[in-house]
Amino acid sequence: MHISIIGSGNVAWHLAKAFLQAGHTIDAIACRNSQHAADIVQFSHSSYSTIDNVPIDSDIYIIAVSDASILDVAQQMPNVSGAVYHTSGASSMDQLTGFKHYGVFYPCQTFSKGDIIDYAKMPFFIEGNDEYASHQADSLARSISSNVQFATGIQRTQLHIAAVIASNFTNHMLHLAKKQMESNGLDFNMLQPLVSQTMAKAFSTTPFDAQTGPARRHDTNTIEKHKLLIEDINTRNIYNIITDSIKKTY
Amino acid sequence: MHISIIGSGNVAWHLAKAFLQAGHTIDAIACRNSQHAADIVQFSHSSYSTIDNVPIDSDIYIIAVSDASILDVAQQMPNVSGAVYHTSGASSMDQLTGFKHYGVFYPCQTFSKGDIIDYAKMPFFIEGNDEYASHQADSLARSISSNVQFATGIQRTQLHIAAVIASNFTNHMLHLAKKQMESNGLDFNMLQPLVSQTMAKAFSTTPFDAQTGPARRHDTNTIEKHKLLIEDINTRNIYNIITDSIKKTY
Repeated sequence: MHISIIGSGNVAWHLAKAFLQAGHTIDAIACRNSQHAADIVQFSHSSYSTIDNVPIDSDIYIIAVSDASILDVAQQMPNVSGAVYHTSGASSMDQLTGFKHYGVFYPCQTFSKGDIIDYAKMPFFIEGNDEYASHQADSLARSISSNVQFATGIQRTQLHIAAVIASNFTNHMLHLAKKQMESNGLDFNMLQPLVSQTMAKAFSTTPFDAQTGPARRHDTNTIEKHKLLIEDINTRNIYNIITDSIKKTY
Repeated sequence: MHISIIGSGNVAWHLAKAFLQAGHTIDAIACRNSQHAADIVQFSHSSYSTIDNVPIDSDIYIIAVSDASILDVAQQMPNVSGAVYHTSGASSMDQLTGFKHYGVFYPCQTFSKGDIIDYAKMPFFIEGNDEYASHQADSLARSISSNVQFATGIQRTQLHIAAVIASNFTNHMLHLAKKQMESNGLDFNMLQPLVSQTMAKAFSTTPFDAQTGPARRHDTNTIEKHKLLIEDINTRNIYNIITDSIKKTY
């Protein structure tokens, strides 16, 4: 397929890589500032264009910009006949109603430029306003990954909530654990094998079955001892609340 | 070294495997019920004994039992001259003052029998009551792993708190995320690539730098939308508290 990408950030960078790996042709990288697009233009053998001047004969347009900019970008684009998708988990496809065929092409992954990601397992949640848009999104996603699901806007928002809990909140737990380690002269990296084993087990069984620890055992002695030893008020507050939540679960 | 293990649970099982891999000899597996020890006795080519009858000429004794049973087990053991260690992150080494040489041999890992674990990277936190006990624990731990640190009882308790946050609490986040996915017709396993990438990034950079998501961006619109859409009161409460904690961090 011939694809134009609008945007030059982390998502644009990785989708360009994934499209190339799957054998597609990237017609153009369109964004406000040509310098931001320089590296993607180079590795994808495409060319830079302004947003209002994006080629009108691409099969597919991928708008990979921040949620707040989607509508603005859509309004600047010419009236193309190919299908237009944004890549946001949190935005409705209704922001693209100015086009004939449109939808959502959401890779549920955390991206930084240069990360090495196994695109073949990357989960895609897709949606289209009509059969053509759904079919094109499905073909494109399946050319990259075996992990493709249709999801409505509501489902995508619920997925985003779950992703915030499973990714952003777990990362914040690691931040609190690191502070706790370092304020006691301990090296945070010593926790890596434990964390990686825990996460692997949660997916190979279920998080419900994989749960261990004092809260799961209702081990009040240990819990009370811990509470006394957590100096940071915020960490102690979170310790209390998640401990109570685990105790209620078992 | 010649080692006797008291206990037949998950920790005993994995330490027996690790000791054998490192070329040590296991003299005996001692516990209350010979049937519980049968598999470890078999794969370790050792023999079963009752706790009061454990061989008195081992170099090292590893008490791998629940925290609540350490003192009881120590009191049942004969008066051995080899160094005696318990394997608990949460217990003081003072429970073993009946012996001449004693200490702690704590593998900071989550264990189930049969798990495949890279013992060479397994973190050990060790402590001894005298130079001999410290040295023996250090030699034994280094024969298995390159990840060995001395830690006082206080440090070990602080480590345990950090491990609860980094392992038990992250696992509980996955439980809440799974409930959120499934109550909206979504497959929890779709989150695995995201979670695994997030954890890898937290350790290759820092959790502070790796943080993403609406709370980090102070994206009030998305946060308010999410709050309205989380039906489970407990999950919503945790969403609020961790979101606030992330917002305060940035």
